[in-house]
Amino acid sequence: MKDLTIDNITDNVHIINSRCPDVRLRFLLERLVVRLHDFTRETRLSIPEWQAALEFIKQVGQVSSDVRHEFILLSDVLGLSLLVDSIDHPKPDGATGGTVLGPFHTHEAENKAAGESISADQDSNRCLWPVDGVKVDVWETDSKGFYDVQYNNRSGPDGRGVLVSDADGCFHFKAIVPVPYPIPDDGPVGKLLCKLNRHPYRPSHMHFRFHKPGFGQLITALYVRGSKYETSDAVFGVRQSLIVDITKVADEEGWADKYGVESSTALLRYDFVLLTEEESNKLREEKARDEAERQGGCELRMGFWSRSRR
Amino acid sequence: MKDLTIDNITDNVHIINSRCPDVRLRFLLERLVVRLHDFTRETRLSIPEWQAALEFIKQVGQVSSDVRHEFILLSDVLGLSLLVDSIDHPKPDGATGGTVLGPFHTHEAENKAAGESISADQDSNRCLWPVDGVKVDVWETDSKGFYDVQYNNRSGPDGRGVLVSDADGCFHFKAIVPVPYPIPDDGPVGKLLCKLNRHPYRPSHMHFRFHKPGFGQLITALYVRGSKYETSDAVFGVRQSLIVDITKVADEEGWADKYGVESSTALLRYDFVLLTEEESNKLREEKARDEAERQGGCELRMGFWSRSRR
Repeated sequence: MKDLTIDNITDNVHIINSRCPDVRLRFLLERLVVRLHDFTRETRLSIPEWQAALEFIKQVGQVSSDVRHEFILLSDVLGLSLLVDSIDHPKPDGATGGTVLGPFHTHEAENKAAGESISADQDSNRCLWPVDGVKVDVWETDSKGFYDVQYNNRSGPDGRGVLVSDADGCFHFKAIVPVPYPIPDDGPVGKLLCKLNRHPYRPSHMHFRFHKPGFGQLITALYVRGSKYETSDAVFGVRQSLIVDITKVADEEGWADKYGVESSTALLRYDFVLLTEEESNKLREEKARDEAERQGGCELRMGFWSRSRR
Repeated sequence: MKDLTIDNITDNVHIINSRCPDVRLRFLLERLVVRLHDFTRETRLSIPEWQAALEFIKQVGQVSSDVRHEFILLSDVLGLSLLVDSIDHPKPDGATGGTVLGPFHTHEAENKAAGESISADQDSNRCLWPVDGVKVDVWETDSKGFYDVQYNNRSGPDGRGVLVSDADGCFHFKAIVPVPYPIPDDGPVGKLLCKLNRHPYRPSHMHFRFHKPGFGQLITALYVRGSKYETSDAVFGVRQSLIVDITKVADEEGWADKYGVESSTALLRYDFVLLTEEESNKLREEKARDEAERQGGCELRMGFWSRSRR
């Protein structure tokens, strides 16, 4: 392994990495090195460009904190997050599709009783969300388009809550009608979007994360129909099946009384369809086998055996 | 741009990036997204793996500082640095080959008079390095295998200096005979090497960086023949043409007196051959044109036009 050149460096990196005992990690590194080197060769990347790229990702790391996930943001704007979710959570027809987690989920949301409000924001339209489902971690911005964690002077969680569905698989809560908002654009990722002549906005949406033992995890969001940026979401999260209409509580007979809200309150309802863990795993494994076959390799080489062991 | 799937996400990211006015940046992003998505699809990357990767590069960013360049280290151990150098500094026969800059070059090295010592380390073999060349920024570890910047209590630069060649294109300085050393393995990159069952060592070498207006910059290193790790350098820097023998000053008639050192002193001499800036640029552009042709595209699409304008 001497006299390495443009043409033999890749194979030599493979050789030196080939002693990795973890077959999955070895496969991931092999493919990463192949793709990284292909990129470098086909663009004839210059040293100043390489330096600028390293400086950029260094800045992304340095601006990151427990409440600012700049690398997730970078992954989002490159379409990587949506791709990984699509791969890891394949869905049959009828099951609710997933979308990007985004950088604003936190683990500090408070448990909420049915019908409780998740939002202290008094400046916007209030709406009622009766949701058929099992369990839900929910988060959204305030009416100005900012998440609680983006305020330096916040006193605690707001615009987020954890709910538990009732015996009928239903639950509901009060919140504000979502608004479009910009992803954080004061950091390195925002500067990149600016250079790319891209806007940083996401259409109006509310995030959901479902947990229930025995079910595959669902991370998703509902998008308000007709929202600005519906067709140019900065992080590629919109799916047709996740776009919903905002109606009025008055449209549903007796709901104003049942849920104790004004009949003029905005209403957003949706039936979420979860997969069992078994269905979810089976589908994921089928797709992985298809890909292994497509590559003419075996699953063992791709390390799925060691991945599922972990 | 809705209902994005495994198969159409890549093209949609291209569409949203296509308004970037900088043709070179647009090309780089397009190829980066293609390769990143190809990698993700062919490995069927899972969400836990994606999370682990983001956490890893976040840690690389957070451990980085003005004197610790962990991303350069990461680039080095993936063979990327050597590849970028090979691409950006193509060399004809006879010209001195380049190698990785490494994470330990600093801009604080002091100017040295001819023959001055660059190293305060008293614990190791001293040697004399008469070098034919033009100008040189030189750096090496101490006898324990550590660079000055790796000591918390360092008082200033050591093991590094900036020399200027004389009218004959020669210069010489005193230093210590290089020793093998590990790249920093207490950070995320070190942990990665450990998982890959790779050792962190580099063979004995001394770094050089040449500057002279009108000449292409040369970043290179000389490797001591027979050094441990010569064939398994953790950062892929060794070239046959950069491996040199250590001899004795006594081997050269009159040199002990001429340079004022003991005749038993170790001696390392080398003829560096620099390219003019014109030769260097011409060769780089030829290779870029070859690559554009290979891709069946034009140089304009690759953005070399805008690159050279910067």
